[in-house]
Amino acid sequence: MRIGVLLSGCGIGDGSQIEEVILTYLALDKYKVDYICIAPNKKQFHTVNHLDEQIEPKEERNVLIESARIGRGKIRALDHIHVEELDGLIIPGGIGLFKNLSNYVMDKEQFVLDEQVDTLIKCMHQSQKPIGAMCGGIVLLARCLGSTEGPLNLCTSHGAYKQLLEMNHIIVEELEADEILVDTYHKIVTTPAFLGTQDLYKMMGGVDKLVKALLTL
Amino acid sequence: MRIGVLLSGCGIGDGSQIEEVILTYLALDKYKVDYICIAPNKKQFHTVNHLDEQIEPKEERNVLIESARIGRGKIRALDHIHVEELDGLIIPGGIGLFKNLSNYVMDKEQFVLDEQVDTLIKCMHQSQKPIGAMCGGIVLLARCLGSTEGPLNLCTSHGAYKQLLEMNHIIVEELEADEILVDTYHKIVTTPAFLGTQDLYKMMGGVDKLVKALLTL
Repeated sequence: MRIGVLLSGCGIGDGSQIEEVILTYLALDKYKVDYICIAPNKKQFHTVNHLDEQIEPKEERNVLIESARIGRGKIRALDHIHVEELDGLIIPGGIGLFKNLSNYVMDKEQFVLDEQVDTLIKCMHQSQKPIGAMCGGIVLLARCLGSTEGPLNLCTSHGAYKQLLEMNHIIVEELEADEILVDTYHKIVTTPAFLGTQDLYKMMGGVDKLVKALLTL
Repeated sequence: MRIGVLLSGCGIGDGSQIEEVILTYLALDKYKVDYICIAPNKKQFHTVNHLDEQIEPKEERNVLIESARIGRGKIRALDHIHVEELDGLIIPGGIGLFKNLSNYVMDKEQFVLDEQVDTLIKCMHQSQKPIGAMCGGIVLLARCLGSTEGPLNLCTSHGAYKQLLEMNHIIVEELEADEILVDTYHKIVTTPAFLGTQDLYKMMGGVDKLVKALLTL
């Protein structure tokens, strides 16, 4: 068994939410599951200075290269991944997820996913392979599958993105960060992660359960 | 109680070892301890492409700004930190720790620490505040305190840096990654972390114990 972890850079503002990614690896290591990290080989939407939270207009970075900082030495470019290699997929959050893996910045309601990402998620789902998502990853998944696959059951916390999720035919459940929601029919498991807490120990509770549940779907 | 976590960038090759840093926060959150992240406001020694492990000669980055990616929104410049604000210090590893917080690259035996880092560690120690170190952080700590504070008891794993540690008057103990060594007299606790394993769940065992022990010193 081998799980793919979809990355979008290194840092919440212009890439993946690092804490969520590392807690995902922690749980995968705990359950002794093999995994590979996956990121698109493309220019980042922009670079954010995480100290003052300002955009650095002159700084160009690449999603795959920056993702490699949290790629555990086993990262692969998205266009070199075949669905047959994966038994499941996990999508951690981060604002950079929206920026680099979709055109959310252009249209916060009707945005579309990066074509390769869209294809990966849809192929995984059509192959009946389980998908886990947390934080912003839930919204990306909803936008990808919500309108075509009928009402999915996905979670949020503190009402985050609730309206947007519902617009995409999602049945939304409010959870704490240490809880998960399993949509057995669609083989999808979600946990709020940063939508629910800043406390990594509480967040780990949810991410750990997500990984454990994913392995049974 | 407030613990400082000393960072040196974001990524093992040119900054802090990200997994060790996040596992440190995880344990601090678990034990409900307040912490701040600390990094020097200076240019990185260089930037490493973590995909192909090559140096990017044209890419200039700043240690504090990159550290802010794992700074949890509470990072401060080293020259704005007073020892009185801290009740303990934790030093995670990373090859960038050597590159940015010392001149190790110039002289792998007789290297000296960045002056501000040297002062911080020495002041913490002289104030009898506990210090935790893992992976490369152990070597930095040894070089800073080993020759002046008499024989410290520090750990390693798989013989990593053993000779260098012994040259700095360290009594070295070989440990597994889920173990810690407590030098009660010097108020220092160490765990091998990445020196001992790639498995984050095993590593977490050591980091968790390190934080727990630090709080009792």
